[in-house]
Amino acid sequence: MSLLTVGSVAFDKLETPFGKTDKIIGGAATYITLAASYFTKENNLVGIVGGDFPMEMIKSLNDHGVDTEGLEVDEEGKTFFWWGRYHNDMNSRDTIETQLNVLDGYEPVIPDGYQNCDFLMLGNMVPAVQHATLKKFNKRPKFVILDTMNLWMDVAMDDLKAVISEIDCLTINDSEARQLSGEYSLRKAAKVILEMGPQTLIIKKGEHGALLFQGDKIFFCPALPLEDVFDPTGAGDTFAGGFVGYLAKTNDTSFDNMKRGLIYGSAMASFCVEKFGTERIQNLTQKEIDARVMEFVQLASFELS
Amino acid sequence: MSLLTVGSVAFDKLETPFGKTDKIIGGAATYITLAASYFTKENNLVGIVGGDFPMEMIKSLNDHGVDTEGLEVDEEGKTFFWWGRYHNDMNSRDTIETQLNVLDGYEPVIPDGYQNCDFLMLGNMVPAVQHATLKKFNKRPKFVILDTMNLWMDVAMDDLKAVISEIDCLTINDSEARQLSGEYSLRKAAKVILEMGPQTLIIKKGEHGALLFQGDKIFFCPALPLEDVFDPTGAGDTFAGGFVGYLAKTNDTSFDNMKRGLIYGSAMASFCVEKFGTERIQNLTQKEIDARVMEFVQLASFELS
Repeated sequence: MSLLTVGSVAFDKLETPFGKTDKIIGGAATYITLAASYFTKENNLVGIVGGDFPMEMIKSLNDHGVDTEGLEVDEEGKTFFWWGRYHNDMNSRDTIETQLNVLDGYEPVIPDGYQNCDFLMLGNMVPAVQHATLKKFNKRPKFVILDTMNLWMDVAMDDLKAVISEIDCLTINDSEARQLSGEYSLRKAAKVILEMGPQTLIIKKGEHGALLFQGDKIFFCPALPLEDVFDPTGAGDTFAGGFVGYLAKTNDTSFDNMKRGLIYGSAMASFCVEKFGTERIQNLTQKEIDARVMEFVQLASFELS
Repeated sequence: MSLLTVGSVAFDKLETPFGKTDKIIGGAATYITLAASYFTKENNLVGIVGGDFPMEMIKSLNDHGVDTEGLEVDEEGKTFFWWGRYHNDMNSRDTIETQLNVLDGYEPVIPDGYQNCDFLMLGNMVPAVQHATLKKFNKRPKFVILDTMNLWMDVAMDDLKAVISEIDCLTINDSEARQLSGEYSLRKAAKVILEMGPQTLIIKKGEHGALLFQGDKIFFCPALPLEDVFDPTGAGDTFAGGFVGYLAKTNDTSFDNMKRGLIYGSAMASFCVEKFGTERIQNLTQKEIDARVMEFVQLASFELS
């Protein structure tokens, strides 16, 4: 089935204990669509870049089967830019600089050809823009998944709750789940958040895996312990992209299939962190993905007798 | 098969965001033997308490099938005492006071009847004492598992490495694994530690579960997300006690059986934190344990197709 991702396409400048980059390609929608490209061939992107964005990157997305008809190019503007520095533990980071550029005041436009998308992934953006985007569909997509961040809980909580009330699935990290719910226990936090509207909640815990909540059901998806984590940028988006790409491929939103989706998403994220930026997830083979997923089976499987 | 636990029996005074206790019963060997009592009936304890230790607690251990012939009572001395205060996140704590008391200079004595134990659990103690204890067996126990802590890495690293080189299985937490190995990545840390001697390494990650390493094999055992964590004291020891108790019950130290042991250990730990001190793990039914283990099956199971 078709997937549409609406989100940022960006330049990132990254500093980790292992090295630094100049401006490289980043952005939530970039990671999401690249990860999803290994699962679904109907993979559409809505976003905006400036005239400074390299054509060869758009071509690379197209080569991965990503349809970029919805990627606006504002020739006069500059692409959204984020500069971040990771601490030694790689679990925390400082933002050195953010330039909204063309994202400032951006209103996503949904091309007619995307109106009938089945799966809609709203990448992290201003909640009011996510909400306005959702209202632009003549027919509500079958499954709407939304990602957000702590910043919007600080400055736009009401807008965020408004859009959350209309989606099917929310993905946030553990500290965001605590902030959104006011509960420290993730199990209690999940109850509070599920009452806000979405039927499904995914709490991302980075190197500690992820939790899937739906009604009274819980599934824990491990993260693969890695020898080296080179750059965590985009891992959460890659995880979400693998997840929603798998759901779109299989056209199955049952709890059991979501479990599989999370395993595929976690496998994709484990590749993402092996190199800077999108480098690793631009160059994967199906064989590598299958082998990595088998590592998850080995990692998590047990039999009681 | 028979299990012998050598470790501290103590008084703890605890402060958590949920309340405070006066002096209550604690100590590694207390938690380990209580947890193991639900699995094995040959459950022997070597340790020391002072004349201030309540007889009814020894009776309670005996009622759980724990053989306390090896529990020395120093009528003139006072029982080891630890006073700790947990922070709001329950993941970190401050030690307010430690009184070694009868543990100061204590040398464990192994009763003749314990000489042929199959499984030996060396609870967290001075590494030189753990090492001396291991040398007191005429015949090396079939399986030796050792727990330790960061303090000994700070003040007695050589002694610690000496005893680690002679054991089968080491249990430590994630920050201790990093300190012991000098590696941040737990996968790299595990390689370094396995080269120190033990064939098996268990890295405890608290609310984030535990990792089992053996050769190139890795298993991830989740922790159950709980609505309330009331008091984390003893959770690591309870986890180890459930694990080694299960191994002793089944007399099977294969990797697959260790996986099962970890699930049982994690289930026991999930009970432990529900109440202060040993209260919860003193009052469990087999039915409760079986139901809890089934929650782990639900939590962790997935099928690829």
